[in-house]
Amino acid sequence: MLTLFGNLESGNVHKVQMILARRGLAFRRVEVAQVRGEPRRPEYLALNPMGKVPALLLEDGDVMTESGAILYHFAEGTPLWPEGRRAQAEVLRWMFFEQYSHEPALAVLRYLRNYTPEPVRHEARLTELRPRAHFALNAMQARLGGASWFAGDGPSIADYALYPYTRMANESGLELEEWPSLSRWLARVEAQPGFLPVYAEGAAETVGFDAYFGT
Amino acid sequence: MLTLFGNLESGNVHKVQMILARRGLAFRRVEVAQVRGEPRRPEYLALNPMGKVPALLLEDGDVMTESGAILYHFAEGTPLWPEGRRAQAEVLRWMFFEQYSHEPALAVLRYLRNYTPEPVRHEARLTELRPRAHFALNAMQARLGGASWFAGDGPSIADYALYPYTRMANESGLELEEWPSLSRWLARVEAQPGFLPVYAEGAAETVGFDAYFGT
Repeated sequence: MLTLFGNLESGNVHKVQMILARRGLAFRRVEVAQVRGEPRRPEYLALNPMGKVPALLLEDGDVMTESGAILYHFAEGTPLWPEGRRAQAEVLRWMFFEQYSHEPALAVLRYLRNYTPEPVRHEARLTELRPRAHFALNAMQARLGGASWFAGDGPSIADYALYPYTRMANESGLELEEWPSLSRWLARVEAQPGFLPVYAEGAAETVGFDAYFGT
Repeated sequence: MLTLFGNLESGNVHKVQMILARRGLAFRRVEVAQVRGEPRRPEYLALNPMGKVPALLLEDGDVMTESGAILYHFAEGTPLWPEGRRAQAEVLRWMFFEQYSHEPALAVLRYLRNYTPEPVRHEARLTELRPRAHFALNAMQARLGGASWFAGDGPSIADYALYPYTRMANESGLELEEWPSLSRWLARVEAQPGFLPVYAEGAAETVGFDAYFGT
C-alpha cells in the first residue's frame, strides 16, 4: 500500500489525497505536522531532505515529494493531464503560479491566523500578505471570467492544485463572495468523480509519527 | 520571432533565455523590470495577469508565462525532459522545490540586498530568509552527494531551473564555497551546449518598455 506522510490541515497534503481518491488508490497516512515541527525532525529529513509535507512512499521503496510532482505522476492515463505540449504547459503554468504566488500568500495567512499562538505578533507580515492573496485571487478570476477550468476546456491537475487553499480562503481572512467565479469553480471541482473534501480522511489507516518512526 | 518580456537581472527570465539559447531559437526582448514596477503596469497586466516576468509571446499570438512551464514547453524533443513518468515527476519535483523553497529565499535575499535603497531596513526579513536559503542549498547538496544532476542520470530542465539563483548566490550573501558539490554542478551546467551565462543578453534585439507598449 502507498504511505502518505502529512497532516489533514495541510492543503498540499490534501492535493495528494485528492488525486489518490480520484484514482481509487488505497493508502495509509503517517501523521507529520508542521505545528509540531515534525517535517524538520531527523527521521523525516532522512525521508525528505526538503523538510516539507507531503511525502509519498511507493510500494517499491521510492519516495516522492512535492505535491505538484505527485499530482503529475498519478494523473497519468486520466483526463487530468491533457494531450499536447502547449496544453500541458498551460497546466504547469497554473501549478507554478499556485506554488509561487497563490499558496505562499493564502496558506501563510491561514497559518499565521490559525496555527500560531499570538497572530497579533505577525501583523506586519499579515499586512504584507493580504494584497498578495487578493492579487492571486484576482488573477484566477480573470482566467475564470471566460473559462470553466484553469487550463484548457476540462478539469486538470491545475484545478486540483489550486483547490485546497482557495477552498479554505475564509481561514486566510478572505471573503470568497468577492470572487463569485471562484465559488462556481470550486463547486465544479467538488462535482468531480471521487472528490474528497478538505480535512476529510482519505486514508485506509493512520499511524502516528512516533509509532511509525519508532521514536 | 518570439518575444520575451523581462529584465536580465531576473533569474526567472534567465531560465527562458537559457532554454531558447539551447534550442537555438531567435527572440527579441522587451525590457520589463521589477525595480521600476513595470510587471504591475496595466499594459503588462493585460499580457500577464499574474504580474510577473518572464512572459513569452509566441508567433501565433499566444502568451506563455511561468518560467517552469516555458522550460517544459521548449524542452520537447530534447534530452532535458526524460522518458518515463517517474523520471519526469522527479524533474518536476526539483522544479517545484526551486519555486517554493529555493527561489523565494535566495532571490528575495538578493533583491533586498542589491535592489532596495536601504537594505538595513529589511534586516528582520533578511534574518528570517538566510536559514531558509541555507536549508535549500543543503537539500541540493544532499542530492548531489551521490549524483551529477538533480533528476536522473543526465541534465534536465530541473538543472536549468535551479541554475540562475544558485549561480548568483553570492549576491544573496551566501558563500558557495560552503557547498562544493554545488560549485561542481554549476560547472557541469555551464558545459551544456548553447550555455548562456547569467546577465548575458541572448536576444537578437531589445526594445524598451515604453517603446513597445507605446506609453
